[in-house]
Amino acid sequence: MLGSVEGPHDVKRLDVEELPRLANEIRDLLVDSCSRFGGHLGPNLGVVELTIALHRVFDSPRDPIIWDTGHQAYVHKLLTGRLAGFGALKQEGGLSGYPSQAESEHDFVENSHASTALSYADGLGKAFKLRGERDRTAVAVIGDGALTGGMAWEALNNIAAVKDLPVVIVVNDNGRSYSPTIGGLASHLAKLRVTRRYEDFLEYVKEKIGNVPVLYDALHGFKKGVKDILAPQVMFEDLGLKYVGPIDGHDEQAMEAALRTARDFRGPVIVHALTQKGRGYSPAENHDEDQFHSPGAFDRVTGAEKPKGRIWTDVFSEELVRLGKDREDIVAITAAMLHPTGLAAFRDAFPERTYDVGIAEQHALTSAAGLALGGLHPVVAVYATFLNRAFDQLLMDVALHRLPVTVVLDRAGVTGDDGASHNGMWDLSILQVVPGLRIAVPRDGRRLAELLEEAVSVTDGPTVVRFPKGPVAEPVEAVGKLGEMDVLRTGDADVLIVAVGPMARACLDAAVLLDAQGISATVVDPRWVKPLDEALVLAAGAHRMVAVVEDNGRVGGVGDAVARLLRDADVDVPVRTFGIPQEFLDHAKRAVILGRVGLTGQDLARQITEAVARRDQQVRSPSTRN
Amino acid sequence: MLGSVEGPHDVKRLDVEELPRLANEIRDLLVDSCSRFGGHLGPNLGVVELTIALHRVFDSPRDPIIWDTGHQAYVHKLLTGRLAGFGALKQEGGLSGYPSQAESEHDFVENSHASTALSYADGLGKAFKLRGERDRTAVAVIGDGALTGGMAWEALNNIAAVKDLPVVIVVNDNGRSYSPTIGGLASHLAKLRVTRRYEDFLEYVKEKIGNVPVLYDALHGFKKGVKDILAPQVMFEDLGLKYVGPIDGHDEQAMEAALRTARDFRGPVIVHALTQKGRGYSPAENHDEDQFHSPGAFDRVTGAEKPKGRIWTDVFSEELVRLGKDREDIVAITAAMLHPTGLAAFRDAFPERTYDVGIAEQHALTSAAGLALGGLHPVVAVYATFLNRAFDQLLMDVALHRLPVTVVLDRAGVTGDDGASHNGMWDLSILQVVPGLRIAVPRDGRRLAELLEEAVSVTDGPTVVRFPKGPVAEPVEAVGKLGEMDVLRTGDADVLIVAVGPMARACLDAAVLLDAQGISATVVDPRWVKPLDEALVLAAGAHRMVAVVEDNGRVGGVGDAVARLLRDADVDVPVRTFGIPQEFLDHAKRAVILGRVGLTGQDLARQITEAVARRDQQVRSPSTRN
Repeated sequence: MLGSVEGPHDVKRLDVEELPRLANEIRDLLVDSCSRFGGHLGPNLGVVELTIALHRVFDSPRDPIIWDTGHQAYVHKLLTGRLAGFGALKQEGGLSGYPSQAESEHDFVENSHASTALSYADGLGKAFKLRGERDRTAVAVIGDGALTGGMAWEALNNIAAVKDLPVVIVVNDNGRSYSPTIGGLASHLAKLRVTRRYEDFLEYVKEKIGNVPVLYDALHGFKKGVKDILAPQVMFEDLGLKYVGPIDGHDEQAMEAALRTARDFRGPVIVHALTQKGRGYSPAENHDEDQFHSPGAFDRVTGAEKPKGRIWTDVFSEELVRLGKDREDIVAITAAMLHPTGLAAFRDAFPERTYDVGIAEQHALTSAAGLALGGLHPVVAVYATFLNRAFDQLLMDVALHRLPVTVVLDRAGVTGDDGASHNGMWDLSILQVVPGLRIAVPRDGRRLAELLEEAVSVTDGPTVVRFPKGPVAEPVEAVGKLGEMDVLRTGDADVLIVAVGPMARACLDAAVLLDAQGISATVVDPRWVKPLDEALVLAAGAHRMVAVVEDNGRVGGVGDAVARLLRDADVDVPVRTFGIPQEFLDHAKRAVILGRVGLTGQDLARQITEAVARRDQQVRSPSTRN
Repeated sequence: MLGSVEGPHDVKRLDVEELPRLANEIRDLLVDSCSRFGGHLGPNLGVVELTIALHRVFDSPRDPIIWDTGHQAYVHKLLTGRLAGFGALKQEGGLSGYPSQAESEHDFVENSHASTALSYADGLGKAFKLRGERDRTAVAVIGDGALTGGMAWEALNNIAAVKDLPVVIVVNDNGRSYSPTIGGLASHLAKLRVTRRYEDFLEYVKEKIGNVPVLYDALHGFKKGVKDILAPQVMFEDLGLKYVGPIDGHDEQAMEAALRTARDFRGPVIVHALTQKGRGYSPAENHDEDQFHSPGAFDRVTGAEKPKGRIWTDVFSEELVRLGKDREDIVAITAAMLHPTGLAAFRDAFPERTYDVGIAEQHALTSAAGLALGGLHPVVAVYATFLNRAFDQLLMDVALHRLPVTVVLDRAGVTGDDGASHNGMWDLSILQVVPGLRIAVPRDGRRLAELLEEAVSVTDGPTVVRFPKGPVAEPVEAVGKLGEMDVLRTGDADVLIVAVGPMARACLDAAVLLDAQGISATVVDPRWVKPLDEALVLAAGAHRMVAVVEDNGRVGGVGDAVARLLRDADVDVPVRTFGIPQEFLDHAKRAVILGRVGLTGQDLARQITEAVARRDQQVRSPSTRN
């Protein structure tokens, strides 16, 4: 049946009796695709009926549907003519794991950074109003986790202010976001969700409402604010938002009825859907913490993930626990990513020193500033791309006060599979401007351990340690030191290659190939790329060219910093910089992309050879320039 | 009496009967200092009694008091031994207009970016708990405007989760933030605030509570969420936060009683204080919109501001209205800065096309993305330093989708008076990494008009137009074109000076002085600094040195971009870059700071002369290097 659905019109055409079969086929396909390629299985299993209902009630793309975050849009893709693409989900040339304008007119935005949907919907709704497009509705589907992000609140305040704004907000409440909510109302919700109809639940809430603070007392951390507003009669209605719910998100017909009511109101409405993450696939339903939020490839029968080998995150995870044993002042902070960032081990060892703040990177950094002002040393573990959310807080709240906060950036550089917005290719550029900040880039697991220890030993300002996604690099031992830099290979005066962290292996490969071309290369790893070691000036002056290689955007990164250091010292040796072109990259495997952007040993050798050749030609005929 | 107050112990020592006189003396001094130097008069007149009460109840600095934003800390400064500094408020060598760690142990942070205090307090409170410092309390004073910022919500969710967190949150509710709230409950609050005691008000609220949605219906925009939670029994208590209030913030004894209750509770408590912005100075009380939020120097009797002359903002303000007449698709967005950004004129002309989103820069950018997806062309006007808050949204929500949004950055470059966190010295660096973004830097008012028009004509991606604080620059006419660049002065092959926008005048001055040294300089203004004009490569190749001059941090700015462009073209002409050193600058007048960092004509001439001399020496004896 799924094969016959080529777009929303086909979904609308189906008889109600056929919908359960459609849902089953979708779940089967989701499990199959994700078991082969990995993917956001849990969230998508939870929104099957909800998505069917949306496409039966609304008129996409005339009514834009914005998913927050976009990782819950697989079902939406299946219902908008992209079944074939699931044969290569997240693979090069296959479907993106997020909405994609290039794939379909039904995808308005690509968003993997959370809590943005309500703002998009606010703008879209205002545009429909201004332009007199009275039959259009902007629909935002937002997870309960994404509601903990501050910008969702900013948007709610604005949406509520416009009585006739055509915006429908579907709160997809699975009570889990990235990890489970503990106790209290959340437990009740979890039970009720699968055992009662929403009318019963409504009665239950009404009965308990006089007694709500007691229930909330038992609620876990950052979720409280959200759970609070999800109870009817509390905040949404006071804000001026109509509220419909809670609805059993797996009762397709109930969802349709609620969405129709919301659509026809022609003003901002919240539809509160209760869903189950991992619904219909028992290994996901029974998973203890994250319901297969985003597994790698797995065995579809047992749910067992294929072994990944040791990744960078594992090294960080173990080392932080080790450091935490001696250093009682070390505390850890995550923004709703306890497991993915490897902090779960620290939490297990030091629960009272671990803080999960919700999807709230801004608060994470400024709360860390407060902890540091109070005499502690916070370690904030976050994916590199998400640190962009807290740039201002790192600059103005942490660095301005020279506070000892260590930010650990996982998934730095090309991440690949998850598309443009997940690549961590910005940090080495924007962090360059932060006064007093020190940045370490370990080239392998041993250096990660060393540099993390050095970072948490700094007392007079913030530090960053960044490392990529995937298997930890094999150790590359230094053959000497140059200032604080590691010399990985000594050569003659031809080319000095500055290898930023994990690019060490590719640079050493390039050096071997360059040798064959008669070009001798020295390779150094600065370890700390900000500030740069002054020894680099002398070393550069002793070479005819400097090549800087980094897994970061070419603009504003370490390459630019090296060039500036040399210019400022009046050392005008030619510098060539190699990194990621400053563009949004299509999804593909990390290794594939590194090849495509010229960051393999072979590519680097070729490019450096060509640069040297052009330079030699200029030196032989300088009159062509001056 | 104020002269005898050398610290909080002296405030505690005073008899209750003496406090009104102290308050009067403080108000007198605030009006006097601000009339001479300008300053945040209105907010500080509103917190006189509140601040006295804080210092009588809490034990600063053992109990840290964090002000949000820091511009309401003048009274705090007066009560912590800094009376003398008010003789030169915001002047070089005088007191900072914000809290300052360098000034006093009573200042924990310097914060001019809003909505951070609750996060600091969360961290401090957690540190006190972990370290067993059971007698300490973290106090955050936050304005009702700052509560509209998303990170305040993130922090509330976290603070509420820890039952025994020693945090007292004082909500300083003057119902205005930067501009007045209109109608409904806000009007009632305003009246009640000055005519009734809080017990009466409490009765009033209780009486009305069944009827709240009706009141809220009449409430203005983004303030609703805030007003909503400020009503007792609604959200704070459900969140698990104790609530005390509302209290008349000008009744010092009532404030003391409330703060003592809060302090002794040893868990998170909200104290809701109703205050009057501009209290006690009739020109401020009677001001129609912003109650002397932050006037320049003024006549203390009449309240009339000293004439400022025509500033950059005025040009933008007029031009946008002009463009708005022809272009019905242009809409304007401000984050609670309608007047300071010059958007009030656009609002007056096109009220239905103007959106004030609250202190919510993140939402501003993503809502703009939504408006653009809906077919409009949003112009977001914001101070340059505050755009840092929305970097991720500009990158991932606007640029990733190639949406035509124009961001207008006022107060770009050195602003000076308001200290480190107000300087707009980051944008030209961090924005370099944003794919597809175009950046214009007008050198004078005429160019601002031209470039703004060009910017809003771009349809395939975002644009930025940035200009500085202060009087608009006198027109500098081009003497020729080089690609799309304006040639401002033609010279020989010695030095090519790339003058970024308003640095044109200093660069031309430098060129004249260089002439006297026998160094001939060409001066070009690129107008659009991203992307750079390819004509620059040819021009640079025809000179012996390139000097780039910008009013932005030296790291990662236009200078680095020019150097990269030339390196990538294998043009290894020496480049020297002049900008603001990458450090947090102490407050002083803009002109003074530009002099200090070497960005005057004279300084530039000297530095370029020296650079040329060093270069000539190297060229004569190249063996010292290679």
